[in-house]
Amino acid sequence: MGEKARTVSASCVEMAEIVQPMDINIHGSIFGGHLMSLVDKAGGIAACRHSGTSVVTLSVDHLAFKNPAPVGTILSIKASVNRVFRTSMEAGVRVIGWKAGSDEETLICRAYITYVAVDEAKKPIPVRPIVPETSDQIRRWEEAGRRREARLALVSSLEERR
Amino acid sequence: MGEKARTVSASCVEMAEIVQPMDINIHGSIFGGHLMSLVDKAGGIAACRHSGTSVVTLSVDHLAFKNPAPVGTILSIKASVNRVFRTSMEAGVRVIGWKAGSDEETLICRAYITYVAVDEAKKPIPVRPIVPETSDQIRRWEEAGRRREARLALVSSLEERR
Amino acid sequence: MGEKARTVSASCVEMAEIVQPMDINIHGSIFGGHLMSLVDKAGGIAACRHSGTSVVTLSVDHLAFKNPAPVGTILSIKASVNRVFRTSMEAGVRVIGWKAGSDEETLICRAYITYVAVDEAKKPIPVRPIVPETSDQIRRWEEAGRRREARLALVSSLEERR
Amino acid sequence: MGEKARTVSASCVEMAEIVQPMDINIHGSIFGGHLMSLVDKAGGIAACRHSGTSVVTLSVDHLAFKNPAPVGTILSIKASVNRVFRTSMEAGVRVIGWKAGSDEETLICRAYITYVAVDEAKKPIPVRPIVPETSDQIRRWEEAGRRREARLALVSSLEERR
Amino acid sequence: MGEKARTVSASCVEMAEIVQPMDINIHGSIFGGHLMSLVDKAGGIAACRHSGTSVVTLSVDHLAFKNPAPVGTILSIKASVNRVFRTSMEAGVRVIGWKAGSDEETLICRAYITYVAVDEAKKPIPVRPIVPETSDQIRRWEEAGRRREARLALVSSLEERR
Amino acid sequence: MGEKARTVSASCVEMAEIVQPMDINIHGSIFGGHLMSLVDKAGGIAACRHSGTSVVTLSVDHLAFKNPAPVGTILSIKASVNRVFRTSMEAGVRVIGWKAGSDEETLICRAYITYVAVDEAKKPIPVRPIVPETSDQIRRWEEAGRRREARLALVSSLEERR
Repeated sequence: MGEKARTVSASCVEMAEIVQPMDINIHGSIFGGHLMSLVDKAGGIAACRHSGTSVVTLSVDHLAFKNPAPVGTILSIKASVNRVFRTSMEAGVRVIGWKAGSDEETLICRAYITYVAVDEAKKPIPVRPIVPETSDQIRRWEEAGRRREARLALVSSLEERR
Repeated sequence: MGEKARTVSASCVEMAEIVQPMDINIHGSIFGGHLMSLVDKAGGIAACRHSGTSVVTLSVDHLAFKNPAPVGTILSIKASVNRVFRTSMEAGVRVIGWKAGSDEETLICRAYITYVAVDEAKKPIPVRPIVPETSDQIRRWEEAGRRREARLALVSSLEERR
Repeated sequence: MGEKARTVSASCVEMAEIVQPMDINIHGSIFGGHLMSLVDKAGGIAACRHSGTSVVTLSVDHLAFKNPAPVGTILSIKASVNRVFRTSMEAGVRVIGWKAGSDEETLICRAYITYVAVDEAKKPIPVRPIVPETSDQIRRWEEAGRRREARLALVSSLEERR
Repeated sequence: MGEKARTVSASCVEMAEIVQPMDINIHGSIFGGHLMSLVDKAGGIAACRHSGTSVVTLSVDHLAFKNPAPVGTILSIKASVNRVFRTSMEAGVRVIGWKAGSDEETLICRAYITYVAVDEAKKPIPVRPIVPETSDQIRRWEEAGRRREARLALVSSLEERR
Repeated sequence: MGEKARTVSASCVEMAEIVQPMDINIHGSIFGGHLMSLVDKAGGIAACRHSGTSVVTLSVDHLAFKNPAPVGTILSIKASVNRVFRTSMEAGVRVIGWKAGSDEETLICRAYITYVAVDEAKKPIPVRPIVPETSDQIRRWEEAGRRREARLALVSSLEERR
Repeated sequence: MGEKARTVSASCVEMAEIVQPMDINIHGSIFGGHLMSLVDKAGGIAACRHSGTSVVTLSVDHLAFKNPAPVGTILSIKASVNRVFRTSMEAGVRVIGWKAGSDEETLICRAYITYVAVDEAKKPIPVRPIVPETSDQIRRWEEAGRRREARLALVSSLEERR
């Protein structure tokens, strides 16, 4: 806990991938489950980079498929930690696709995932603070807080009614 | 559109799985990305059963990992359509785990996923109405509406601030 | 051994699957080896449910591919224990396929597989009795015995001649 | 049909494999479904070599797991066509395992699988005759016929009773 | 051909990965074949980025495994194009590993791979020139030429003797 | 070390494979990374057969893709140990492809890979001598030496210049 804060930039992860025939669904685009795996891995490595500990996935808070990625699409998966909450962290992941011979990039998928830092016994442990620096990072830091509030408000409102 | 409504029960899907060594993460439990694949497949088949059409995954609205599932756990993945919104449907998925020789069941994962019905040209098409019958189905139907409202409210509040 | 008998119905397992491009053979239908994996898993979970122990596959007594399942087919794999023989059990597995937007179901595969119940040291252990209830379950119980007799008769007749 | 016969030896196929951690079941040995895939592939290539056509798997007539193959086992999978029946062929497959640094070989699995030769439209087509030469090949040729008779006798006896 | 040159930096690709239990060999480290797949993919995407065309792998000129990467290692795979030869390009790939909670990085693997740019008909096509800028990039550009010469010299010396 | 030499023939390994849709790249041929896995496995089993110990892959010294192998191609992968160097061995691997219904064989890939024999603690251990017998085996034995010399010469010349 006494550990020094780190910047958001220090948590940034990039993964390149190419959509191959073994990765596609019946519509000829990357299978959602496969894309989720990639997104979860990228977010988890970002969380791991920031916390300097092992992490486990707690929840996918939102993951939206924006455009299909057909065979041959080259994917660029970018993840970073948006905000730290005591023992948990929200990571944001963006997947961009492009085709060889084209200049156009397409947004394939955007996701927000919460990871928990754990020790060797898999018990949650506090995560060092994170410092957003750019205006985008500051905006994402604020949005992460609002996403969390909205989620908690929804959960308690649904539970009240049960 | 003029199509007859169907019951929630008619959309129910069950998948059994066993966690094998090839499915685990570095903590010895089922890899989150693999579980997401199973959950997405089960929800997609439920949506497909209800709509009678092909479907594509639009978004994972929430997916929470409740307990780890170590090697040898037998999983029971249950999915059904909670509610229909014109061309989209929310499916709910629950994953329960148990071990051979034990009577205890553990909740492994719960998820809400939105699918869109599509025609052969992959254009969205209207989905026939769904009829919740039991009190649980009616509660889920209501909650699906509230989840959607909360999501849309959050999105517009975040966009306003940008 | 003193354990109470259970019904066949209590062993029933259902698995849903969808045939994706990564699952097919050079003819464009589900690869036989992949289908066998699914069938073995479903039968093994049924055996596990009945015995309440770990199980190992002893033999595939017969597995017939009835119709090809092309990409997009939704599979329903149903397994149950047909009969118990001291430490082993015959499970029956049926795979049915259907296409989104069609009412027709096709029989894809039928299989009979024998599993052995094992303890922690992987030694065979007795399996509690099973009680067939419906006329179909009683017929399958009788057929399981006849399949076993025919198999043993064939083996001893072939061995005599060597 | 007027095609020249070929010898059994000309159909022989050998596949080497090593059991890796990604291939095992919860007991630490090769997963049955994975082994079945290898066996089906080896038998199919043998059938393909003999017929000179594409083939599809018709049935696994018998497949027995004789001994577990733990991680690190090197597998030798041998397949050949035992006998031809008009448009179908029985292939026999044996899987032997050994460990680096040991001289001992273990029988892991034995299987008899029936394949059908198909043309481009996937219609069954006649298979050229096969000539067993060694005494082992002649014995297997005879046994393939007896296995087929026993199977057909069982099927018709079970159907009579329904 | 008249196309403008691009810098080496514009071809740089980074892939992050984590070694999971499903990726390891019998020694508990990443399976060589799996690592080769990752390396080939990363190099291919770098080549694709530089050429702006599809590419096919022509040869792995050298790939050295420097240290094992046990389960839990986070891999950083970096690839860039070292030099262009008319229709082909040498890509260099480095794989670095580190463990959560450690500051140490280990060199896991280094590779040089040659890719060919191809058009839609899979015919080789000229690749635009590449411009090394840093002293490291210039050294790699020179070394790529020497590796190629040594390779061609070896091939012709071996062929002479046959 | 005092161990008796063995022949090259005793190390020979053969693997048959068929290229399935799940194995291909965006050009419709076997994915390079998948082929490398098969080649590494075959070479490793040959090395293991000769040394009678566990082995680890040290380097891929050269691997050339000669022709693409489209879906349906049956592959014959042949590996043997070319030469022993104290604790390491060079294995040579050839991959031949053919299509059902055709008599033509195509060279798909050729590779030279170096493996190191290791004991239980993964320390390198001396490998028993190998005896080439046929003129092809003797030629390969000589070429393995020249490949090694050329490689070492290149390495030291590149290092001098750094």
